[in-house]
Amino acid sequence: MSAQLLPEALLRVIDELGRLPGVGARTAERYAYFLLRADTRTADSLATSIATLHSGVKTCPVTFALIDANQEVSPLYDGRERNKRLIAVVEEPLDIVALERTGQFKGTYHVLGGAISPIDGVGPEQLHIPELLKRIKIDSVEEVIIATNASVEGESTALFIQRQIQEAKLDTKLTRLARGIPVGVDLEYADQITLSHALEGRRVL
Amino acid sequence: MSAQLLPEALLRVIDELGRLPGVGARTAERYAYFLLRADTRTADSLATSIATLHSGVKTCPVTFALIDANQEVSPLYDGRERNKRLIAVVEEPLDIVALERTGQFKGTYHVLGGAISPIDGVGPEQLHIPELLKRIKIDSVEEVIIATNASVEGESTALFIQRQIQEAKLDTKLTRLARGIPVGVDLEYADQITLSHALEGRRVL
Repeated sequence: MSAQLLPEALLRVIDELGRLPGVGARTAERYAYFLLRADTRTADSLATSIATLHSGVKTCPVTFALIDANQEVSPLYDGRERNKRLIAVVEEPLDIVALERTGQFKGTYHVLGGAISPIDGVGPEQLHIPELLKRIKIDSVEEVIIATNASVEGESTALFIQRQIQEAKLDTKLTRLARGIPVGVDLEYADQITLSHALEGRRVL
Repeated sequence: MSAQLLPEALLRVIDELGRLPGVGARTAERYAYFLLRADTRTADSLATSIATLHSGVKTCPVTFALIDANQEVSPLYDGRERNKRLIAVVEEPLDIVALERTGQFKGTYHVLGGAISPIDGVGPEQLHIPELLKRIKIDSVEEVIIATNASVEGESTALFIQRQIQEAKLDTKLTRLARGIPVGVDLEYADQITLSHALEGRRVL
């Protein structure tokens, strides 16, 4: 698209928004045009919040969850109602939000910062695994729930952590989130692997 | 989601991005997290471009296309290679981009600023129709191509403009973009109305 067709300032916003994950040229155009038609305050307010994003967020030194820049440790770690002897290990900070939405989990979290993926050049040394082993010792953790994704990468990572815990001879129970048929899904639409897992993990009624 | 789960600064960005058209909570989370993981410059650069969007863009007083704040008139109007006696009437500024991409049109544009839509409270008085009539007179326009959308609103708007031009007794040819089967679409998948239009507008080979 030549610079003649749209104003330079608009093209710049389209270009920048096009870097967001999954946003193509048309979508970026639609977003930018929306910001242009909305009142100046909407655009200004978005601009300010994005500009202060990095300075307002830091990583918890214990759990590697995202915390406010003025917090010491994640409230999901040192909150009174949280059980430090139970750790859910997740790949990314947003996975915590998903688990917290269930309202079922009262333990603490440990964010790995990804999953082992040779294709993307992510090896175990880039993940916060040594820190996890340290936490298991220091907090006398009784159970570690591996809550990595149900992907090849998530599985390899789970396996790797299992071996590390065994090698370190840590005395902790190791569990994995159950696999099975998601709620609301018909049997006929479930894939083979999910169905195999559902059979394997069947429970007595 | 409680403020405890994610840092305030991140929640603010998620909230603001969630106002973009078609962006739900999960998508906004994904965008915000991408900006957080990207280096500070990516976020800063997006913030700056959004903050300067409104001040960098204005509306062409003749065509109502979007132009640079330092331009007088759209280059698609006063460009030497543009034929001022041929006007394509479109609903929105981005429609110009779509037509320019064809490389087929060397006339000028007129942006209505929407289409007549009683449901959305848009009446003809909110559209740049009087300015179009004026242009037809001043520039001795020979042909006006109505290029509004192929929707009920686009059709009503086309009809309204046609009547206005007749009432004003303007001597100009009035045309409408051809309707028919889009390139690459099988007959069996074309809807009835499109197919009727295709039959009606059939051409001698």
